[in-house]
Amino acid sequence: MSQKRSLTNRQLFLEFYDSKLEEGKEVTLEGWIRANRDNGNVGFIAFNDGSYFKNTQIVYDGNNKDYEQYAHLKYGAAIQVTGTIKLTPEAKQPFEIHATNITLLGDCSEDYPLQKKRHSYEFLRDIAYLRPRANTFNAVFRIRNTLAYAIHRYFQERGFMYVHTPLITANDAEGAGQVFHVIADPKHPTDFFNANACLTVSGQLHVESFALAFRDVYTFGPTFRAENSNTTRHASEFWMIEPEIAFADLEDDMDLIESFLKYIIKYVLDNCKDEMEFCNTFLEKGVIDKLNHVLNTTFRRMTYTEGIELLQKAVKGGHKFENNDIYWGMDLQSEHERYLTEQVVKGPVFLTDYPKEIKAFYMKLNPDNKTVAACDLLVPSEGEIVGGSQREEDYEKLIAKMKELGNDKGLDWYLNLRKYGGCKHAGFGLGFDRLLMYITGIQNIRDVQPYPRTPGSLKY
Amino acid sequence: MSQKRSLTNRQLFLEFYDSKLEEGKEVTLEGWIRANRDNGNVGFIAFNDGSYFKNTQIVYDGNNKDYEQYAHLKYGAAIQVTGTIKLTPEAKQPFEIHATNITLLGDCSEDYPLQKKRHSYEFLRDIAYLRPRANTFNAVFRIRNTLAYAIHRYFQERGFMYVHTPLITANDAEGAGQVFHVIADPKHPTDFFNANACLTVSGQLHVESFALAFRDVYTFGPTFRAENSNTTRHASEFWMIEPEIAFADLEDDMDLIESFLKYIIKYVLDNCKDEMEFCNTFLEKGVIDKLNHVLNTTFRRMTYTEGIELLQKAVKGGHKFENNDIYWGMDLQSEHERYLTEQVVKGPVFLTDYPKEIKAFYMKLNPDNKTVAACDLLVPSEGEIVGGSQREEDYEKLIAKMKELGNDKGLDWYLNLRKYGGCKHAGFGLGFDRLLMYITGIQNIRDVQPYPRTPGSLKY
Repeated sequence: MSQKRSLTNRQLFLEFYDSKLEEGKEVTLEGWIRANRDNGNVGFIAFNDGSYFKNTQIVYDGNNKDYEQYAHLKYGAAIQVTGTIKLTPEAKQPFEIHATNITLLGDCSEDYPLQKKRHSYEFLRDIAYLRPRANTFNAVFRIRNTLAYAIHRYFQERGFMYVHTPLITANDAEGAGQVFHVIADPKHPTDFFNANACLTVSGQLHVESFALAFRDVYTFGPTFRAENSNTTRHASEFWMIEPEIAFADLEDDMDLIESFLKYIIKYVLDNCKDEMEFCNTFLEKGVIDKLNHVLNTTFRRMTYTEGIELLQKAVKGGHKFENNDIYWGMDLQSEHERYLTEQVVKGPVFLTDYPKEIKAFYMKLNPDNKTVAACDLLVPSEGEIVGGSQREEDYEKLIAKMKELGNDKGLDWYLNLRKYGGCKHAGFGLGFDRLLMYITGIQNIRDVQPYPRTPGSLKY
Repeated sequence: MSQKRSLTNRQLFLEFYDSKLEEGKEVTLEGWIRANRDNGNVGFIAFNDGSYFKNTQIVYDGNNKDYEQYAHLKYGAAIQVTGTIKLTPEAKQPFEIHATNITLLGDCSEDYPLQKKRHSYEFLRDIAYLRPRANTFNAVFRIRNTLAYAIHRYFQERGFMYVHTPLITANDAEGAGQVFHVIADPKHPTDFFNANACLTVSGQLHVESFALAFRDVYTFGPTFRAENSNTTRHASEFWMIEPEIAFADLEDDMDLIESFLKYIIKYVLDNCKDEMEFCNTFLEKGVIDKLNHVLNTTFRRMTYTEGIELLQKAVKGGHKFENNDIYWGMDLQSEHERYLTEQVVKGPVFLTDYPKEIKAFYMKLNPDNKTVAACDLLVPSEGEIVGGSQREEDYEKLIAKMKELGNDKGLDWYLNLRKYGGCKHAGFGLGFDRLLMYITGIQNIRDVQPYPRTPGSLKY
């Protein structure tokens, strides 16, 4: 990289933590003003160039000939600062820069919508192009970056192959009405591809074909839902992680989920200390303890059937759910899942072996003919966070199930994977944005995505 | 990760390269048969579990009671092998496994379309769900994985923030007719988002807003073109890398491009030795030398104007281009670009400062008022591979240009970035799939993508 670009905040902090930052060293930085106050004799700029979460304090002296000019530099303006390092071990910030010169690079207009005060999340969402400059989003998007990288590191260190499964697909994996159509010319909607093209809702079917060539693989990319749900947890576009492992069963899958989650959470705690402290203080008190608890707990495994029995026992014992009608075969609601993980297990728990009727067609039928080899991971304060399963590797069982559901069209290739050296395999899906909400304590999915897309909302 | 999953080919090779693989060690592997031949006394299976590019040789003995059964195991079948390691330093493969037991896990049906012979690329494209098992695609998709990871490593090691720019967008950045529309209900095409939604053609405008908060950022994700081009270099869906750096000009941008390209090419050469040897032998003779030449050359920088003069000189000197009409202001064609990089420079060259009329609206106008601060990187045997520019940071110049082109609607926010602490910034775009073609020697973009999408083609 060029030697001529200016030093960054990040480099200064890294040098400081390495005990290599020297008192009196002359530096030139370029970045933005996060605050500027002065008392006539001395002025202070909270300076941030975006390379590091923490600000650097710039001090300018009343004796500087341009003092008045510096004192009038505006919040949000881009500046170049030259000065010398002063180590301040006794102060809140470990070092500051005593400015010899400050040059205005780009002024900030009076109508700047982002002001040095608390704005509502709604307001900030409306200025999505500026909100990364606000502390909360500075923290959240840094954690988003680190979490994404942690995911790649985990898989790459273990020999998993990253597969870019296609986003435009002819497979309407979840049935009509939930998918977006991809159309070049609205007057001739199927002309371009000579097919009904949709945006993918999952890369799983495609990535299975790669697991049966490369053993351990993963996708990590955008997926879409045309669901008209205006909730804090639904977005029309979001990122998913979908690993798939061959020569592996449900137990291996759960081992993988546990190892993976612990690794990426630890990676974020280790590499986003300042950002996580911010989340812990301002977004969710105790979020770091919550995450450390996950790291230090062996995830329990419990069948769906056991789960139902425990819920029925709770109801008998007087516990009131909104839905108190607990029966084998029901789809658990969030309150039930949270009861199991928060009240019964008091920690992460895999619920396994769900009734086949409430799970997807590709899940492996258990010998009982009633349940499938699926698992949902439930965690305290959240509920379900990961869904996985062993896949049906028996050609006859799979085609029977698909015919029963009427979705055997266009999936010959998927079926054929069972005929051509098929083997037991498993995988899981994890919504990246929801995981980021869980890790940061952010309550609305719109506030963990750079430019959220939801029904009725497509600004920018 | 689980201790109970079987050992992998990869682990054996890594142990071998670490000189830790012990003669006589008992191992159990699970994977697929790539070849099986026997002479009645001894049999050999070329075995691959997908974890490593190279096969492992399995030897089974005529004295084994199940010899006949082993000898009939089919190409493509999934097996479990237990046996002992025999080091074979004198042979082509550094070790083999003497099988004590082989169990069939998943048979391969007689109609298996992938056979142990050379298939045409066209045929393999038609069985995209099986072709990762073929040697060429085994190599190419491994390199694809490593190249993608190299990209993240490069940026993360340097403090760049990864930004997931949205794929569904209201900005039709390249004008109508080239974009796909995203429609929930074809009868009411704009109802879902209450806007005309398209698939993105570039994340640049969105990522600029993040560069002006985080300094150094990048996107790496899918982009789309609804272009009806049936060529070997066009796909409807492909991945792009788009970094954006603040407090940086065109020189910084070119420094970044050169450093970035050298890093990721070196990373692939270092980490995909076997795969690149395969490419060098079977896909493009000399491809490794070609890449090493790029690594060992300082990229030249030359203005577009100089380039035109050199081309005009070439024509005067008798060189015949298909298009010999060379004039200042023309858009260079591939033959012109290749002449400059292959014949004149004999190495990578940045062409800079293009006529403003042939470049995008957001590029910085140079003081000459005629050219913009853009660069294209040209490389031998390929031509243009990267396009970058410094962005126009002057609000008045940018809005004048946008009004001139009639695309100032809906981009107030983009303009505002120039009013609110704007600063010089630059970036580039690199098509990931074309880069992968360049690195592997693959000639058709359909053969570097897991499931290619092109006009008229949406199988799978």
